[in-house]
Amino acid sequence: MAYSNAYAPSAPELPESFDQQQQHHYPYQPTQHFSSSSSGMFSSETHPEIVRSFESADRYRSGFLEESELRQALLCSGYEGISNRTIRFLMFIYKIPGDSLLRLGPKEYVELWNCLAQWRAIFDSYDRDRSGKMNSTELRDAFYHLGYMLPTSVHQLIVSQFDNGTGKTVELSFDSFLECGMIVKGLTEKFKENDPGYTGYATIPYDVFMLMIVPFIASYD
Amino acid sequence: MAYSNAYAPSAPELPESFDQQQQHHYPYQPTQHFSSSSSGMFSSETHPEIVRSFESADRYRSGFLEESELRQALLCSGYEGISNRTIRFLMFIYKIPGDSLLRLGPKEYVELWNCLAQWRAIFDSYDRDRSGKMNSTELRDAFYHLGYMLPTSVHQLIVSQFDNGTGKTVELSFDSFLECGMIVKGLTEKFKENDPGYTGYATIPYDVFMLMIVPFIASYD
Ligand SMILES: [Ca+2]
Ligand SMILES: [Ca+2]
Repeated sequence: MAYSNAYAPSAPELPESFDQQQQHHYPYQPTQHFSSSSSGMFSSETHPEIVRSFESADRYRSGFLEESELRQALLCSGYEGISNRTIRFLMFIYKIPGDSLLRLGPKEYVELWNCLAQWRAIFDSYDRDRSGKMNSTELRDAFYHLGYMLPTSVHQLIVSQFDNGTGKTVELSFDSFLECGMIVKGLTEKFKENDPGYTGYATIPYDVFMLMIVPFIASYD
Repeated sequence: MAYSNAYAPSAPELPESFDQQQQHHYPYQPTQHFSSSSSGMFSSETHPEIVRSFESADRYRSGFLEESELRQALLCSGYEGISNRTIRFLMFIYKIPGDSLLRLGPKEYVELWNCLAQWRAIFDSYDRDRSGKMNSTELRDAFYHLGYMLPTSVHQLIVSQFDNGTGKTVELSFDSFLECGMIVKGLTEKFKENDPGYTGYATIPYDVFMLMIVPFIASYD
């Protein structure tokens, strides 16, 4: 039952009494499918605003967005205050699979756009006290809604990473929430690639281990 | 032969022709032992300068250095320009094992001091063109000397993390070299804890995986 919750295609509403006993179960999020085409063009059902923002950011009409172009696209689409560090995480997570370059095609851009819209809505809906920031409890509930039921130890460690060395609990801005989220999403998906049987254990060669983690340790911003 | 090289207690000098065939072997560094006591005091053979720098940084005579105190200690010991991010990596890697607080005792401080002195000497000796910075080749050779024979793909990825999004190859300052080194050392040692048989493969539970990586993704500095 806990497992079926954790793997449900869309995460259930948070139950009245959040069962602390479930906290060590495996928070895999199911792979999401999007309706965009894979031909390098936008499909006809893509929202015109997404197409417009892609095309106006794609300066040299290459058909791809690079990191600086994505930064521009997000700024023009009302996503202010997203750090360069978070933008690099987004590039890394949504880049064209197997492409040696860090760039997004139309398909990847639609996925990224949908993800941002979803995360923005969840941020607003779980910021229950309307402080414009997420405290630790709000964050846990938001992650749960997104399908990530993190072990308490992992949740606490992630929150503590944002205290700027003060040791005090901080509230997260939308940018920090997104950064947290991309770390959890990115690492969990990399882990999952090495645990095809959903056992909760991954067997990973050393070079694969390093290659999957180092991009998250960008000395950047 | 490649294996015995990779596991040698002290890494050999770089051979005349660096064998590219070895690049996928496992770059574990053997555990180092230090001569400090474990009693929470400095042993009598500890260099007086180390003792003095610890004691003058330990503001409240707690017997431990916290992050801000380590920053002060390094500054007063001639290590200028070490970023807060690198200092947090140092704290994380050298902290008292099993301690929930991020702090160093005398034993840990001696280890950290010895490590810094060793890395400083290696930086100077492998900066062959005396530019004060390390290029990619110098870095590879320095890592090799330190016992880390990184796969080429991992090496290239690490170097690319320091290009600030320019896509151009950059040279690394001592601080960046140290940051790189702590990432490699920290992640390799965490991996090794999950590969006691030195097979090159680690089987890791999801929560352990997250807990070992998240501290390296500090949103900091
Ligand atoms: Ca709030
Ligand atoms: Ca040089």
